[in-house]
Amino acid sequence: MSTALQPIYMDADNRKVRIIDQRRLPHELVWVELADENQAIAAIRDMLVRGAPLIGVTGGYGMALAAVSGPRPLTDAWLADAADRLKAARPTAVNLAWAVDRVLAACLAAGTDAQRLAAALDTARTIEAEEVANCRAIGRHGLELIQAICRQKQGKKVNVLTHCNAGWLACVAYGTATAPIYAAFDAGIDVHVWVDETRPLNQGARLTAWELGRHGVAHTVITDNAGGHLMQHGLVDIVIVGTDRTTITGDVANKIGTYLKALAARDNGIPFYVALPSSTFDWDLRDGINEIPIEQRDPDEVRWVDGWDQGPRRVLVPPADSPAANYAFDVTPARLVTGFITERGVCSAAEAAIRRLFPDK
Amino acid sequence: MSTALQPIYMDADNRKVRIIDQRRLPHELVWVELADENQAIAAIRDMLVRGAPLIGVTGGYGMALAAVSGPRPLTDAWLADAADRLKAARPTAVNLAWAVDRVLAACLAAGTDAQRLAAALDTARTIEAEEVANCRAIGRHGLELIQAICRQKQGKKVNVLTHCNAGWLACVAYGTATAPIYAAFDAGIDVHVWVDETRPLNQGARLTAWELGRHGVAHTVITDNAGGHLMQHGLVDIVIVGTDRTTITGDVANKIGTYLKALAARDNGIPFYVALPSSTFDWDLRDGINEIPIEQRDPDEVRWVDGWDQGPRRVLVPPADSPAANYAFDVTPARLVTGFITERGVCSAAEAAIRRLFPDK
Repeated sequence: MSTALQPIYMDADNRKVRIIDQRRLPHELVWVELADENQAIAAIRDMLVRGAPLIGVTGGYGMALAAVSGPRPLTDAWLADAADRLKAARPTAVNLAWAVDRVLAACLAAGTDAQRLAAALDTARTIEAEEVANCRAIGRHGLELIQAICRQKQGKKVNVLTHCNAGWLACVAYGTATAPIYAAFDAGIDVHVWVDETRPLNQGARLTAWELGRHGVAHTVITDNAGGHLMQHGLVDIVIVGTDRTTITGDVANKIGTYLKALAARDNGIPFYVALPSSTFDWDLRDGINEIPIEQRDPDEVRWVDGWDQGPRRVLVPPADSPAANYAFDVTPARLVTGFITERGVCSAAEAAIRRLFPDK
Repeated sequence: MSTALQPIYMDADNRKVRIIDQRRLPHELVWVELADENQAIAAIRDMLVRGAPLIGVTGGYGMALAAVSGPRPLTDAWLADAADRLKAARPTAVNLAWAVDRVLAACLAAGTDAQRLAAALDTARTIEAEEVANCRAIGRHGLELIQAICRQKQGKKVNVLTHCNAGWLACVAYGTATAPIYAAFDAGIDVHVWVDETRPLNQGARLTAWELGRHGVAHTVITDNAGGHLMQHGLVDIVIVGTDRTTITGDVANKIGTYLKALAARDNGIPFYVALPSSTFDWDLRDGINEIPIEQRDPDEVRWVDGWDQGPRRVLVPPADSPAANYAFDVTPARLVTGFITERGVCSAAEAAIRRLFPDK
């Protein structure tokens, strides 16, 4: 696939990072420039960038910007503090801490300011390149699952359901959950995607629909409420979602509502896969429901809906004095997950299977 | 409870029916006058009124308006045709056909035009009065369930989750799913309601939150995606929803997304109750998933969101060229339903239990 766009890149002169402001999509394509780690923190916290792999890449570049713009000399203490501030920008995605710590370690291992700067830039770029390669590999492995369904259906249309956006906008290229879809489309399979709109921030309706449309992939936007009905009536062949953090025991934190789709898939005998690069595994946690911190965001994200009416506009839906709650993620227990699609292949949602694929982690 | 409002009533001179235009809530309270059956059909089809019991009452009054405004003499053929047109306004709610047919039968059994008119008005008023009495009784029976939970929790807050609006706006007074909540509140129980916003038309965020707020009941608006997470974390004690049509075998058609909440309740051992007057039972159907017609509505209801920004306003969320689908209801199989709260008491979701409560149907 070629989308000719990448949601993040560092300028050629190594001074600025440019990102797509994803809050403005799909109605406007707006680029924003980040010049220091504070701007990277704001971009993560305010969700100009989102999606676990992209948050990781942005965290890596955030550390590079800290090295670019920070005080001279670049002391250990100052770099560690910048890393802490970056990691606090969003609590659920494990990729953020993983990427920030990796760049920090590379910096601290280097000597002079110039070497620290070079190490930061180099490591951030490496993380980006690895994520692209990971997503490409996820697409290759996931394609085999879709091909098998296509054979079983004797070439008839394959219906995939996805929740939120785990596309190239959430990564750098290909996406995680979308990588197998793009690969299937490019392989000539008749693939159609049910796109959960994904309240409250509508990443499905705004971002996944936009991505798929740009690539020419047939898709239909549905409310988050509709998936169970579609599954009951044989209109979904496979569910593929991304994840923000997955325990070594196979519990999956992903956008709020994922758990409900996993329950419906199980109730209707439909395979439920989670696509992820290994950077999204949390190798320390064993109980996703009780141990993964679930971010609570501003209730106004539930109360107000952003959209377009001759320009960007937001409308209030409930009564002005009704309170709201905004849980951003939920945890799908491993028992509901058919398997993981990783850069090294497909495995079941169990510690032994994960460790077999990643004995080096 | 006294809300001092009723979403439908016939004027004292028996010529016009007045309804709240529920599309305009919660930000505006607008009354609309219906003068003939065609205006009643439009009010049902365009969802100025909604909710199974209220659709039934409106259908009954629609037949009364047909008798008020129709040609003289009021022939059998013309009355039957008006009934057919009314029943076609929305396909899923069984109360509509039930109420329309009841008024039609009363008309046809009467002799002169004056007698037919009197029969229509009288029967429509009777249906309304019965629905009020039914909802009141549902509240009384449901209160016992909430009281039992309150005792179990030693008086601590009881958290109810509901989907869509099965409140007095959906009925005439008390509501179905909300009747036990109002009864518990009035009995001094510390009750709090998680209100699913209920996409696409946001009847939860717009109507249930407004109703509960008017009555002073503590509530929190959540996305439809959030309920599973809340249940996993012990934040929901009971789920109570309404229904648009329930088979004699206990399968429940209700607003799209209800099935997902029933799955989550089952997975977390939380009681899942459906509150309904017996007029919502379909005594002829045995297989809800395959036999209940599921209305598909205009995809623009998914694509555009109605809200308020210094006035009523609607915004487009997905890309302008992305298609959408709009399934209005789903069916929750009886196996996921803990019980029914009816005007005659609580029973399990099984044919034998339903028939024991309603041997006369």
